[in-house]
Amino acid sequence: MGVVLLKFGGTSVGNVDKIQKTAEQAIREQELGNQVVIVVSAMGKSTDKLLSLAGEITKAPAKRELDMLLATGEQVTISLLAMALNKKGKEAVSFTGFQAGIETESVHGNARILDIDSERIRDALFAGKIVIVAGFQGITRDGDITTLGRGGSDTTAVALAAELAALKCSICTDVDGVYTSDPRYIKGARKLDELTYDEMLEMAHLGAGVLHPRSVEYAKNFKTPLEVKLSHGREKGTMIKEEMSVEDTKVVRGVAFEDGITRITVHWSRKEDMRVSKVFTELAKNAVDVDIIIQGITGLGHGNLSFTLKTSALLDALAVLEDKKAEIGYEKIESEQELAKVSIVGSGMVSNPGVAATMFEALTDQQIPIKMISTSEIKVSTVVPEREMVKAAQVLHDTFELEKA
Amino acid sequence: MGVVLLKFGGTSVGNVDKIQKTAEQAIREQELGNQVVIVVSAMGKSTDKLLSLAGEITKAPAKRELDMLLATGEQVTISLLAMALNKKGKEAVSFTGFQAGIETESVHGNARILDIDSERIRDALFAGKIVIVAGFQGITRDGDITTLGRGGSDTTAVALAAELAALKCSICTDVDGVYTSDPRYIKGARKLDELTYDEMLEMAHLGAGVLHPRSVEYAKNFKTPLEVKLSHGREKGTMIKEEMSVEDTKVVRGVAFEDGITRITVHWSRKEDMRVSKVFTELAKNAVDVDIIIQGITGLGHGNLSFTLKTSALLDALAVLEDKKAEIGYEKIESEQELAKVSIVGSGMVSNPGVAATMFEALTDQQIPIKMISTSEIKVSTVVPEREMVKAAQVLHDTFELEKA
Repeated sequence: MGVVLLKFGGTSVGNVDKIQKTAEQAIREQELGNQVVIVVSAMGKSTDKLLSLAGEITKAPAKRELDMLLATGEQVTISLLAMALNKKGKEAVSFTGFQAGIETESVHGNARILDIDSERIRDALFAGKIVIVAGFQGITRDGDITTLGRGGSDTTAVALAAELAALKCSICTDVDGVYTSDPRYIKGARKLDELTYDEMLEMAHLGAGVLHPRSVEYAKNFKTPLEVKLSHGREKGTMIKEEMSVEDTKVVRGVAFEDGITRITVHWSRKEDMRVSKVFTELAKNAVDVDIIIQGITGLGHGNLSFTLKTSALLDALAVLEDKKAEIGYEKIESEQELAKVSIVGSGMVSNPGVAATMFEALTDQQIPIKMISTSEIKVSTVVPEREMVKAAQVLHDTFELEKA
Repeated sequence: MGVVLLKFGGTSVGNVDKIQKTAEQAIREQELGNQVVIVVSAMGKSTDKLLSLAGEITKAPAKRELDMLLATGEQVTISLLAMALNKKGKEAVSFTGFQAGIETESVHGNARILDIDSERIRDALFAGKIVIVAGFQGITRDGDITTLGRGGSDTTAVALAAELAALKCSICTDVDGVYTSDPRYIKGARKLDELTYDEMLEMAHLGAGVLHPRSVEYAKNFKTPLEVKLSHGREKGTMIKEEMSVEDTKVVRGVAFEDGITRITVHWSRKEDMRVSKVFTELAKNAVDVDIIIQGITGLGHGNLSFTLKTSALLDALAVLEDKKAEIGYEKIESEQELAKVSIVGSGMVSNPGVAATMFEALTDQQIPIKMISTSEIKVSTVVPEREMVKAAQVLHDTFELEKA
């Protein structure tokens, strides 16, 4: 017995029927003896409709006013869900971000939560009510409505779970858990029962789009058990927590992959001219996100720097680099498109140095060229040609026998 | 120079084009040197859409949750209007009821404003911004969102105008002012330049549906000049204020009429049994509104009581009276439907006792039967058969020469 958080995204509350089902799921959780807090997003396409209204007026709305507009979406859902629970005979109360005490920075459109004053929520739970909180939104100290940016409702849920010391925070979504790899492409991909925060973080960063990395970080910091599960179903999902049960001794736990990657290489004729930090400062200033970075110096005194980024950001990146050519001092730039990133993830890797070697060998055996490599304590990423991506992922999934529990 | 309030109802901000026009009107007002506060309602049919969503879930939503739902309607309008003003190069800021400091009672669906903390609005006006406030909503001391009930946005506007000691509060609507009578039915009906608060109150109560009585009362208490004018037009409307300019010496200023009236008569066989107050206590308990009341005692020791109410409330009223027959102690009840109320209104009446006589004479001359009469210092109401309503109103409009300025 304790507090349980349930979070439902827009598709899970996309119409009245789904809102009813969401109410039923919350009631089942309460009947297990738990105090239930539900965090919901705006219904289905309602955010898009609001954005399109704003778009009819201006292409560049003030972010404060856009937050004011978008925050209405979740407010509609929470009130309807409260009505649905009432109708089923349960006491329920809805809270906007402001009423839930979610204080954020004053950064409109992408605010971070600074503090949560959960007194009203605690009082309502104590009174036996199911509490419904608008995800994705908060309020600044000055009383302005903010939104939390992408994955915002997940962040709301996890932050509230931490604040309320919840038993778990279930992210109810349209997949039934986290898989060893994407089952749409990889034969033998299997739902995981458990995963560590760090593994989930790597999987999330590597394109397994189930959870937003920010919410996983939050859960990790507060050691809040996270569950990814199917909305409106009774089946258990995947638990994400600090440590695995002892039985699970797999070194590699998942294979993640992502296409649409481009590699840019910057060449300097003299290694003394290399302004490497300037490259990344300028790209960051222009909101170009860079992923894998490799720096090389050849024997002839030349220098080069390679990094990957999403192909969608290529034109922006090239424009920035062209603009700052003199300051960066490079000689020429090359880019290679149609690449993909294929990664293996697992907490056990840190004590198994042979894993990376096994990975490279398996790819090389299949004549898959490895363009770049990047490692961390719990993952190894390789950049390969886009057309080889699924094959590479399947090879790795098979090699590390991820189809077996 | 000073603060000017502009209030726009749902049809005046019903689409993006009308929101743009609303922005232009606010800018014109600011360019006259005024500080401008705009109060808006939800866009056109959006409240109906929200109500229909709630209706899909339950026929009896909790009022707190219904307020939570409906309050999103105005929040959408205020953000879009702020964007429209920004787009036209004007600084603007939107406030929800809560942000505007509108504190109400904790009566959901029909709350009264208790207090306004206008600091944020004053700061924004001082900074040169156009301030946009969500009408119809407020917040309780406990932080729950409330709505103000029918005519709520008018009340918000008038209350803010009073709090800010505004030069005037313009209610911008789909009519260009207050008329001597309804121009759709009455030949010679003429727009009034001015009207007193009391006259407007009577007109509002008598069915001239331009303004909600509550907002007129508020304006009267704080002596805030009200203007009723056409949205998005440049023409002056009708000013409602404490006293008329001296030139206007008309005794009767308007003719109001309302159909769908029923008269109920309660008969007691002994006047000692008459529990008159019980009748009205029970009706009020059941939210049945009663209008004109006449009590009579015949020479034979019988007693009777007649009152009018809207025909739509007849079944409710009869059910209440039937249910409480023993306690009220009456012998029988009669009701007459298809009646109408026709009234003349004017501040000058109080010092012109002949006005009522002129009125009755005019109606009698036309063979219009008068079923009931009710007078106040500034109005005389008669109940007539519904089919004679328009004719009666036209006769009175002609008799008092209201077509002449």
